Amino acid sequence: MRKILVIGSGKSTSYLIKYLLDKSETEKLFITIGDININHANHLIKNHRNAKAVLLDVFDANSRKEAIKDADIIISMLPARFHIDVAKDCILYGKNMVTASYISPEMEALNQEAIAKGLIFMNEIGVDPGIDHMSAMQVIDRIRAKGGKMILFESFTGGLVAPESDNNLWNYKFTWNPRNVVVAGQGGAAKFLQEGTFKYIPYHRLFRRTEFLEIDGFGRFEVYANRDSLKYQSVYGLDAIKTLYRGTMRRVGFSRAWNMFVTLGMTDDSYVIDDSENMSYRDFVNAFLAYSPSDSVELKFRHALKIDQDDIVWDKLLELDIFNPNKMVELKKATPAQILQKILMDSWTLAEDDKDMLVMYHKFGYELNGKKHQIESTMVTLGEDQTYTAMAKTVGLPVAIATLAILNGKIKTPGVQMPITKEVYEPILKELTNFGITFKEKEVPYLGYNPLSI
Amino acid sequence: MRKILVIGSGKSTSYLIKYLLDKSETEKLFITIGDININHANHLIKNHRNAKAVLLDVFDANSRKEAIKDADIIISMLPARFHIDVAKDCILYGKNMVTASYISPEMEALNQEAIAKGLIFMNEIGVDPGIDHMSAMQVIDRIRAKGGKMILFESFTGGLVAPESDNNLWNYKFTWNPRNVVVAGQGGAAKFLQEGTFKYIPYHRLFRRTEFLEIDGFGRFEVYANRDSLKYQSVYGLDAIKTLYRGTMRRVGFSRAWNMFVTLGMTDDSYVIDDSENMSYRDFVNAFLAYSPSDSVELKFRHALKIDQDDIVWDKLLELDIFNPNKMVELKKATPAQILQKILMDSWTLAEDDKDMLVMYHKFGYELNGKKHQIESTMVTLGEDQTYTAMAKTVGLPVAIATLAILNGKIKTPGVQMPITKEVYEPILKELTNFGITFKEKEVPYLGYNPLSI
Repeated sequence: MRKILVIGSGKSTSYLIKYLLDKSETEKLFITIGDININHANHLIKNHRNAKAVLLDVFDANSRKEAIKDADIIISMLPARFHIDVAKDCILYGKNMVTASYISPEMEALNQEAIAKGLIFMNEIGVDPGIDHMSAMQVIDRIRAKGGKMILFESFTGGLVAPESDNNLWNYKFTWNPRNVVVAGQGGAAKFLQEGTFKYIPYHRLFRRTEFLEIDGFGRFEVYANRDSLKYQSVYGLDAIKTLYRGTMRRVGFSRAWNMFVTLGMTDDSYVIDDSENMSYRDFVNAFLAYSPSDSVELKFRHALKIDQDDIVWDKLLELDIFNPNKMVELKKATPAQILQKILMDSWTLAEDDKDMLVMYHKFGYELNGKKHQIESTMVTLGEDQTYTAMAKTVGLPVAIATLAILNGKIKTPGVQMPITKEVYEPILKELTNFGITFKEKEVPYLGYNPLSI
Repeated sequence: MRKILVIGSGKSTSYLIKYLLDKSETEKLFITIGDININHANHLIKNHRNAKAVLLDVFDANSRKEAIKDADIIISMLPARFHIDVAKDCILYGKNMVTASYISPEMEALNQEAIAKGLIFMNEIGVDPGIDHMSAMQVIDRIRAKGGKMILFESFTGGLVAPESDNNLWNYKFTWNPRNVVVAGQGGAAKFLQEGTFKYIPYHRLFRRTEFLEIDGFGRFEVYANRDSLKYQSVYGLDAIKTLYRGTMRRVGFSRAWNMFVTLGMTDDSYVIDDSENMSYRDFVNAFLAYSPSDSVELKFRHALKIDQDDIVWDKLLELDIFNPNKMVELKKATPAQILQKILMDSWTLAEDDKDMLVMYHKFGYELNGKKHQIESTMVTLGEDQTYTAMAKTVGLPVAIATLAILNGKIKTPGVQMPITKEVYEPILKELTNFGITFKEKEVPYLGYNPLSI
């Protein structure tokens, strides 16, 4: 038996563990799941003979080292900041490692050691980052192989609620860490490339500079820009590209409504409100509006944001019950972002029978033999239930498949890496299609940002 | 002769040095001005027999210590972050010290040592901070002395252009460090108290939440909130106050126009634009607007900010020549704020014969014998020319007067302090009236924020 150690058994591990268990007989795998709480792990392995859950405190160096030493390959599904201790032990005991997280500078620093020891440290192999890298590089490599020159690349991902469970005015529910949604886009201006020019959007304008796109069978979406669209420019080999834009997908209308919170300062996470504990939802809203002895919070809100009587954004606010003077914030010394998160969780938490949806959209523009071409590539994955979510599927399956491919010697190149080479993405994307994770491609006339030039 | 060492001889030292020179015979003073460039110092002392300029590099510990050891009292007019080395030497050699800067935590930490050695470290004794502390505490102490209870305090200061030199559409020119004007309000939400409730304004809304006030003979002004209006709440003894609001004064209309820059992200100082050197002013503006192959930068600007054809803010932009494709930014790797500063300096730099103006406005609300009262107190100081500016006068004179008062034993209480006690503010405010720096007070009906309650 080949021994796989999975550290962490949170929400995103359901499909990962199921995949490994389903392969455990034919592939001769034994899966050990280590966590500080083994209830969820036991729920996922259901007494499977080729798996066990063990108590593992990743901060206890001895037991962590013991567990790593005993395994053939390590999957770390911990929060990103905890990978580095695991990675150092993997160097020490000569183990390969897989994570779905962004490569941190500390992780990157282990590259030479990993190569020297012939170890594979595969990272960014979830969905975003992960499937986005692989599906994009597959098309980009194909375009290049036939002599095409990339001139435009746009890539968008969204974790949303499935159409059948999409029953609120925001067309949104939390399918992932709510906190990341509330503070999304903060920390600096968004930067991207449009037709050879750098463009910058400050945070407070981010949700007013959206673009639209359509996915066949799923309707229209909007996207707002990621903070750094240029992050993978060199890694993807796109240094000469004219348009490079990455972003996050929402249903149309979400961003315009979300912008109300941004504008008033309700997403700020940089200071605490001293008396937050004793505030009502209404008091919280009022803290961002001017004092008036005679006017209502509602009218001050409408006036501050110039919201017309019949604007749908108003109904979206009412749906959140945000003007309620009787619902209490209850959180002590909370930031505005933490309070807003609590209010939103009242409305946007997935119900027992709700399903989620993961959508991805790439647009590739290229020149070949003096002509411009455009390819659109889309992927939609729907969740099955609250355990087997689209998010867990698209994050966990690539991790599991990569782990097995490394064990079986199909992925061989050592080093700290992300899945951008053919050696990696080909087998993984192929296996993902067996689970319904497929991209639909279509050739369309090149539009770019220059409609007059077609 | 009593020896005064003035370290730093920048723009704000003209009146300070003139005052000390004028008193040097009767008060037996010898003034040494140390700077790394003595041209300006020599210009200011004009061969006066009781003064000399000496080359002094404040980073050269030996010569700094020598100069401090040799003096009876030290005035540091250096940028605030450089005071601390001077202060430590003053502790070492047992010298009193005066600065116009905010008390830093490092300076505050010297309090016990200063008291132990009987030394006076007087800070925040320029105009803002400085005259604002003194003039406010004089009225507050008077209200308390007759049994009144403070319920409202608002305080605003502005460095502006004098009415006779006020000849641009923004009614504004740089009379102080332009950089501080461009980044004003950044770094977190503004916090203040209105009628017992904390209010928060995010930076990107700061210039849309202005209030208006009038100064007799000088017309209307607007104010935007300081970041922390509550900074002096305890120091002033206003812990039970219901309304506490501090801010910066501008002429009406400035903030609405300034907000265009804030909204588009042109005041951001947190990242550099790589190719800034080769940008035109027009390119700079365009970096904050969406790409379009057919629309002009002007129309994109109007559309993004919903600026009507006949809105005066548009003329304000044109006056700055900000859409000029031929004027180059020229600055290497500059932040948006640095580039905007350069563009503004083309238009807002004081001309040779321009005069500046310093305005201050306090509003005090209090209860006495069950009745509510309100006092408005205003001060306007006009500059004489580009050397003897209102800014230099209101910053430098309190520093000079305090220095002499310490030398003459009129101010005796040791410790790291600001001018909020009667011992300090009485003699200084009195002497300032001899130089035309006077406050006009008037009793008005109490309005507060509750117009319905009068």
